[in-house]
Amino acid sequence: MSSSIINPPSQLIIFDTTLRDGEQSPGASMTKEEKIRIARQLEKLGVDVIEAGFAAASEGDFDSISTISSIIQNSTICSLARANDKDIRRAGDAIRHAKRGRVHTFIATSPIHMQYKLRMNEDQVVEAAVRAVKTALEFTDDVEFSAEDAVRSEIDFLVRIFDEVIRAGAKTINVPDTVGYSNPALYAQRFEQLIARVPNANSVIWSTHCHNDLGMAVANSLAAVQAGARQVECTINGLGERAGNAALEEVVMATRVRKDLYNVTTNIRTEEIVPSSRLVSAITGYVVQPNKAIVGANAFAHESGIHQDGILKHRETYEIMRAEDVGWNANKLTLGKLSGRAAFRSRLEALGITPDSDEALNALFVRFKELADRKSEIFDEDLHALVSGHQGDDVVNRYVLEELEVTSKTGQVPRAHLVLNVDGKIHPVSASGSGPVDATFKAIEVVAKSGALLELYSVNAITSGTDSQGEVAVRLNQQGRIVTGQGADTDIVIASAKAYLDALNWLATQGKANPQTDEVM
Amino acid sequence: MSSSIINPPSQLIIFDTTLRDGEQSPGASMTKEEKIRIARQLEKLGVDVIEAGFAAASEGDFDSISTISSIIQNSTICSLARANDKDIRRAGDAIRHAKRGRVHTFIATSPIHMQYKLRMNEDQVVEAAVRAVKTALEFTDDVEFSAEDAVRSEIDFLVRIFDEVIRAGAKTINVPDTVGYSNPALYAQRFEQLIARVPNANSVIWSTHCHNDLGMAVANSLAAVQAGARQVECTINGLGERAGNAALEEVVMATRVRKDLYNVTTNIRTEEIVPSSRLVSAITGYVVQPNKAIVGANAFAHESGIHQDGILKHRETYEIMRAEDVGWNANKLTLGKLSGRAAFRSRLEALGITPDSDEALNALFVRFKELADRKSEIFDEDLHALVSGHQGDDVVNRYVLEELEVTSKTGQVPRAHLVLNVDGKIHPVSASGSGPVDATFKAIEVVAKSGALLELYSVNAITSGTDSQGEVAVRLNQQGRIVTGQGADTDIVIASAKAYLDALNWLATQGKANPQTDEVM
Repeated sequence: MSSSIINPPSQLIIFDTTLRDGEQSPGASMTKEEKIRIARQLEKLGVDVIEAGFAAASEGDFDSISTISSIIQNSTICSLARANDKDIRRAGDAIRHAKRGRVHTFIATSPIHMQYKLRMNEDQVVEAAVRAVKTALEFTDDVEFSAEDAVRSEIDFLVRIFDEVIRAGAKTINVPDTVGYSNPALYAQRFEQLIARVPNANSVIWSTHCHNDLGMAVANSLAAVQAGARQVECTINGLGERAGNAALEEVVMATRVRKDLYNVTTNIRTEEIVPSSRLVSAITGYVVQPNKAIVGANAFAHESGIHQDGILKHRETYEIMRAEDVGWNANKLTLGKLSGRAAFRSRLEALGITPDSDEALNALFVRFKELADRKSEIFDEDLHALVSGHQGDDVVNRYVLEELEVTSKTGQVPRAHLVLNVDGKIHPVSASGSGPVDATFKAIEVVAKSGALLELYSVNAITSGTDSQGEVAVRLNQQGRIVTGQGADTDIVIASAKAYLDALNWLATQGKANPQTDEVM
Repeated sequence: MSSSIINPPSQLIIFDTTLRDGEQSPGASMTKEEKIRIARQLEKLGVDVIEAGFAAASEGDFDSISTISSIIQNSTICSLARANDKDIRRAGDAIRHAKRGRVHTFIATSPIHMQYKLRMNEDQVVEAAVRAVKTALEFTDDVEFSAEDAVRSEIDFLVRIFDEVIRAGAKTINVPDTVGYSNPALYAQRFEQLIARVPNANSVIWSTHCHNDLGMAVANSLAAVQAGARQVECTINGLGERAGNAALEEVVMATRVRKDLYNVTTNIRTEEIVPSSRLVSAITGYVVQPNKAIVGANAFAHESGIHQDGILKHRETYEIMRAEDVGWNANKLTLGKLSGRAAFRSRLEALGITPDSDEALNALFVRFKELADRKSEIFDEDLHALVSGHQGDDVVNRYVLEELEVTSKTGQVPRAHLVLNVDGKIHPVSASGSGPVDATFKAIEVVAKSGALLELYSVNAITSGTDSQGEVAVRLNQQGRIVTGQGADTDIVIASAKAYLDALNWLATQGKANPQTDEVM
């Protein structure tokens, strides 16, 4: 490896799967509008390939991929597809309008998956894979093949199937650690062996896809890069099923800070990392812990107050990267109370938010003015929260909050009084609870009777300062169907009510939540 | 390495530094009582060495280490100390009553640290290190030496200084990646070189200490284990400065799940991992993100609803460990409304909570009964929250909430009315704000006038269900001095008020918050 240092750096392809593997996190389902906003931000970030979804999973997924394909100009748009004719054709159709489109097909290759999940033998698996790649080539010449659970697959069988799919025309070969089981040395060794043994290995791009169950997804991905991989599949904030995927921000910054080791360059504009992290966190309701590398609130906290005693005599003593390089400390103040419609519209556009119509813009502007009355400074994060709320054609708007009143008082049981609009009909309801949020949720359930369990309740202060909006995420589990609702407001109780109603609206939207399958990669 | 697989497994020492490096996280300062509770949980978890603090940093740190030394029976208690006479003697005094006590001394060995921070040359650094080890031996025969920033140090100089401190009597040699700069292959190589070149390397324990700035702390630690390290320094939840330390739970579970690779055993009772994680999160106010490995809410979420369609045909298809093995799904229901004082006391004891006096127990029992009136099921987490609140001799109790009333109403600016007790004097105050929490904080500031900035506001639902208590964490920055306050209540607004007042009490406690120095390891 050390000889690579004197070579010119080679290109590392960053393949983001926040919209596909990330969305498979429980309750992280997104509306089409939200996916478009994230896709625009990923394009701004400089991601090479955006895996926009799994076209065959649902009509909604197909529609999102198709729309994103027609909007995004600078990133390749990819759809996942199982190795069967129907999936491939859906994927191919979904990316039809992309400037650059990719079909990413996969099939499991480990004995345990072939035996217990697929119930297919090796010959059948190879035949399905080859046919899938050939079918995909009818739609695009950019076809990726993944051997699901490759880390637990027999190396000889991997060599065989990769040889066959490369001969069939696959351009990218992905070697996923589906269950997060490998370590860096082993994962690197697997790439070395494959690249050495697979015929025409040098004619394709080798790709990593790592899960973080044992905390090693990033290190595994990077070890494979040292062994010759030139694509890393990853997600913003390490979002993804279970413990998630390799975090894009950690992979990218490690290759940058340790260029001496990895000798690769990426197209990532690192100053867009923190804005991307915040957007994904706000939309999915998945908080980022303060001690998360790169994008956690404390990741650079040694800059703010800890070394205030002036002992820090030299910047590099404790600092290997600069907060501003990843987009911290950017001036985010955008609008205030006196900002007009033109300024508002142009700021929305800069954020990749394009209201469908003049009425939609007007409605947003009214909400902006209401917010500006309560909050002196409006940041980009506030605007993102403002347009959230799942309005649009994706999610039914069955439950709407008309009025709410609840008092917190020491020594008194809180009672919430709400007026709900359900399918256009007005329902005044009230209920008591152990706190104002509990009382509010109970009042909503008087009408909704969803029977859902509250699995997670989280609050994100969107910006700092006491007049910040709170963004509340509520995860409901209705007999195994898991949805997350979001609500933002400067009033935490109102935000909670909105989030709960949003979750109910998701539950009321047939076939939208959880495009989960057992085939997850 | 592969030959080790046929050898019997060797013992890996788990050195937890949650109470020292973890506490250096901004605002993670803990009271003595909280540190004792965490130490008891770490003992229950089976941690070999508990680094309980940095004795010379403050009287409070000294006192905590000393008290923990006299309480804990089954773990070694360690104090950190710079390589100077005063630090070493404070550390030695602090662990005097420990059944097994360790002094852990360190000095920086990298050119950048020696030049810019220490302003010492190599000879001076070696001399200080040797003298420190010899002084420490006056107090205990268990002395650890760390070469701060070892990863950026010259290998020849490391060989020299380690040789000298081993000859002086150090039993454990720690090789920290202070700035989180290494990768697994390089870090392992460093251990291989050191173990090969340092005389009598086999007579000492080699130790890792990794930071997570590039997301590789766990993988680096484990790579060093494969290269011969037999102690890993780590923290619960990966707490620690900036992006934190290697996460104990990930290191331990990786060695267990991949015993075939690491061939080591630990004394950790893994079913205590999740309870430990929750306790540390509750006390420090550092939330754990859902997609955190092992201890995140989603880490095992494929068990709860995702595969509800019955496609999962074989457990191991997507599962490499079981949730119950790390303490998920444990039956945590402990007490209810009808539980008596004896049951309450014995449950507290089981949790390692021992009230100072009968009056303290009575006061807690009253609060327990109040809580049981509002919440049908009382879990261990609720009891931990109940005893939090920083009562005791550690933190001054300057600000107390007597009464609070604030109404959330759509379309109306919230106004909070509070009665505060400040140094025994009653202050009725009120203020308006953009939400009930904002109004409450502003009302408090009418009296407190702290001028502190609100840097972070977070809410943890302590247990699931709508009648869960909310535990609010509020991080204030007063001219560079950072504190975190905690407050728990079933009412989120009251919990917020308590948390803000708690933070003010920390600020009012001289010399307590942030035992930060520039010497962090």
